[in-house]
Amino acid sequence: MSENRPEKGSLTVVSGFSGAGKGTIMKALLSRYEGYALSVSMTTREPREGEVNGREYFFVSQEEFDRTIEEGGFLEYAKYVKHSYGTPRRYVEDQIAAGKDVLLEIEVQGAMQILKKMPEANTVFVTTPSAEELKKRLRGRGTETEESVAGRLARAVEETEFIPYYQHLLINDDLDEAVGKLHALIQDSKKRQAFVEQFREDLKNIG
Amino acid sequence: MSENRPEKGSLTVVSGFSGAGKGTIMKALLSRYEGYALSVSMTTREPREGEVNGREYFFVSQEEFDRTIEEGGFLEYAKYVKHSYGTPRRYVEDQIAAGKDVLLEIEVQGAMQILKKMPEANTVFVTTPSAEELKKRLRGRGTETEESVAGRLARAVEETEFIPYYQHLLINDDLDEAVGKLHALIQDSKKRQAFVEQFREDLKNIG
Repeated sequence: MSENRPEKGSLTVVSGFSGAGKGTIMKALLSRYEGYALSVSMTTREPREGEVNGREYFFVSQEEFDRTIEEGGFLEYAKYVKHSYGTPRRYVEDQIAAGKDVLLEIEVQGAMQILKKMPEANTVFVTTPSAEELKKRLRGRGTETEESVAGRLARAVEETEFIPYYQHLLINDDLDEAVGKLHALIQDSKKRQAFVEQFREDLKNIG
Repeated sequence: MSENRPEKGSLTVVSGFSGAGKGTIMKALLSRYEGYALSVSMTTREPREGEVNGREYFFVSQEEFDRTIEEGGFLEYAKYVKHSYGTPRRYVEDQIAAGKDVLLEIEVQGAMQILKKMPEANTVFVTTPSAEELKKRLRGRGTETEESVAGRLARAVEETEFIPYYQHLLINDDLDEAVGKLHALIQDSKKRQAFVEQFREDLKNIG
């Protein structure tokens, strides 16, 4: 491998129950280790105060969003009544080529779309150690009504159907431990990919 | 859980390079641990001397095979010029319901078919520690011509494209170690599945 060419990065798709601590884990991973980057989504909504184009989101017109769909430029996207959101394939691929381990937090349907396009992506589903603990954390936020807690728990029941499609179940009991496990599985997957690539090259040479 | 109801089993799809030792690993797993069973395929070919219906294969007519296809009764199947082979969904599901950990050795295209129908299946790809070692083992069989060794290595290059779709890469360096790892990953996946099922039930009860 040339010294000028950085080692290839990776993509890790992170989903999980609302309240399980996905965001906290990813934030801690980014602050504790080098080489990670968050994926930046494309959206048609207006930037809010303090939001920077290319940092929080890529802010684009509906025309540009639709053109990107037609060009197959999204790893996944979703159109809602008012606005559209999508994960630009190009951005993710550029980051991976630059050696970054890209993290993408996304709900289960989006994750399924991504898996079809990038089967080599790591997939991680984050959960609390128990359903009781999930309820406790949702209530503990202090911002949720009983009704919205019930809604999130009902949504969680639906999401359990998708867990079999994920490679890894990450139980967020102790934050430090969860972060360490996430880091380890991402680095292991890169070693595995490097092993397979080397094996393939060797096979071609000795075949 | 009722004491009369056995704990649910699992399905593990095992693929790998020809010469990597899939068969040896599976045989050792079956002899070392309780609770495993090999999947039995359905075929339209005639039984050979000593073969028993329901043990080596389920021997059926072409009509029955085609009817099973129409009924959606295969997890995967392949029709060749002379004969057809398929994995009966019913047999696998019955074994799992009876608490068996079913092992299914199959090539990569068949594995992809199965994954679409049973995403909760474990998928394992078996490899030698190096391409050089793969060549050595193929030659060491003593039954392969140089041409057939070259053919198998060329096929192995193609198969590397499918490895990203497998959850686990099992490097068969030391047989005992490989068997232990296979056993551990299967038992871990069952614990994970039991965790998710319990979590789902609890969510429904507290929601």
